Amino acid sequence: MSSEPDYSHGVAYVAGRYVPIAEAAIPITDWGFLRSDATYDVVTVWDGAYFRLDAHLERFERSCRRWRLDPGLDRAQITDILSRCVRLSGLRASYVEMICTRGQPPWGSRDPRQAVNRFYAFAVPFVWLANEQQRAQGLHVMISDVQRISPRSVDPTAKNYHWNDLTMGLLGALDAGADSVLLVDGQGHVVEGPGFNVFGVVNGRIVTPGEGMLEGISRRTVIEMAASLGLEVAIGPVPVPTLRGAAEVFLSTSGGGVLPVTRLDGQVIGDGRPGPITTRLVQTYWAWHKDPAYRLAIDYAA
Amino acid sequence: MSSEPDYSHGVAYVAGRYVPIAEAAIPITDWGFLRSDATYDVVTVWDGAYFRLDAHLERFERSCRRWRLDPGLDRAQITDILSRCVRLSGLRASYVEMICTRGQPPWGSRDPRQAVNRFYAFAVPFVWLANEQQRAQGLHVMISDVQRISPRSVDPTAKNYHWNDLTMGLLGALDAGADSVLLVDGQGHVVEGPGFNVFGVVNGRIVTPGEGMLEGISRRTVIEMAASLGLEVAIGPVPVPTLRGAAEVFLSTSGGGVLPVTRLDGQVIGDGRPGPITTRLVQTYWAWHKDPAYRLAIDYAA
Repeated sequence: MSSEPDYSHGVAYVAGRYVPIAEAAIPITDWGFLRSDATYDVVTVWDGAYFRLDAHLERFERSCRRWRLDPGLDRAQITDILSRCVRLSGLRASYVEMICTRGQPPWGSRDPRQAVNRFYAFAVPFVWLANEQQRAQGLHVMISDVQRISPRSVDPTAKNYHWNDLTMGLLGALDAGADSVLLVDGQGHVVEGPGFNVFGVVNGRIVTPGEGMLEGISRRTVIEMAASLGLEVAIGPVPVPTLRGAAEVFLSTSGGGVLPVTRLDGQVIGDGRPGPITTRLVQTYWAWHKDPAYRLAIDYAA
Repeated sequence: MSSEPDYSHGVAYVAGRYVPIAEAAIPITDWGFLRSDATYDVVTVWDGAYFRLDAHLERFERSCRRWRLDPGLDRAQITDILSRCVRLSGLRASYVEMICTRGQPPWGSRDPRQAVNRFYAFAVPFVWLANEQQRAQGLHVMISDVQRISPRSVDPTAKNYHWNDLTMGLLGALDAGADSVLLVDGQGHVVEGPGFNVFGVVNGRIVTPGEGMLEGISRRTVIEMAASLGLEVAIGPVPVPTLRGAAEVFLSTSGGGVLPVTRLDGQVIGDGRPGPITTRLVQTYWAWHKDPAYRLAIDYAA
């Protein structure tokens, strides 16, 4: 009698098999590791349903094309794999990642075109970017002097694991006692942080960067929610002083939706509490999770 | 009676065990993969001996410190692991990689400081960056319009796997029929290519970039060889037109030492054959492999 594997901490799909997350591994020689030659996307499961799965699958396909990676699977096949990971785990709130790596070319070749690309996926328990207290009181974010990698080097709209700049910036912010970090571009405009986009409320209008950062699905959701609430959104360069002077600042992320920021580099934003526009967007974000247009229930019994 | 594992294609050190390279894997959740939060170094073994092992170990330590990674091993311990990989493989010519990854923080944390870093290593058969014909006749290299990631974003002197810019540039060059690619910085200066530094011979003097690229050990070897041969080296910005007008162009890499370039973007360099300075440096490079100052023999019987 063999004991059932423990899937409760998450499940991964690796080389055609479903395994407990703790056993999931990729070959050390995969260029997805040795050259960070890979793309990915993350869709969340909330209350037993995907949120905006179609948007994530569509972006994953675009990212793959951008880096000339081919997972060899269509959307329906990818959805089946993701759903089986979630189902095996039993998780009702999950962070579900799909990955395509270069694989490796035949031995001795350095031609990426000769590699057989690989598809991986996993479902793990939902991870919040901010804890309960941070969500209630707002985050303290620092602006780093590390510049975000330029779009002239790596296209940030195609998801990639090139996070060294974000990680080094984050370490500096954590050392200084902040909760997270924002990076700027070469012109001193705020662009993004590790796993999130950023917004300000300036003269009653929502502002957010338009270039140099990932076009997050949560960012798109914020822009669409703002339109539905009759709020104006200006997409374009956001200089650091503009953000410092904003009445409200908030982040968007699949790691928790809309997250208030109440301090920037130690300086209080607005009155130091999550502002009214931020609060309305937080409520709308979770309300939209019940909307059949965005929600796809997972059949856990299948 | 158990059959002996097949180590002939290479050996890896993973989680404290030595395994055939084909079985070597890293956890899919290691931030070394999911955030390319890792560093590495590569030392070659030629004719049964390391070449400049000390220099590679010293740089690996510096890279680890730069990214705040701790392999938890000193130089002697790392050397023992590398040597055991080589010895088990039996390879007399090998490409030996040491790696330190972030690992992962406790579940739910996004604080890199809470992660337990991991050390990996492997020895695989030596891989040439250029084949025999390319080494004899010279490489055709293209200059990409993809910019190398800026030092303001990621410090290139600390080795890292942020290669998307190099990979995309390489794909463009291969599609155009060239052998490899060179990237420029934001000022239009040539910096480096995938796995190599670059040199030109201009008015009898060797020129090579001084910023924005990895400070390769092979590059250092070229600079030291030039000094020993009484050749002048100017380290500083190399605009693209300077390289195009050079009498000779060559690359330095642990994947084969000094490699002649005889065409740039389809235009012939010099008389289209490896030049006299390049040829002297190629010969000196291999001669130095016999010098006890740089050579450390591996005891395959140990």
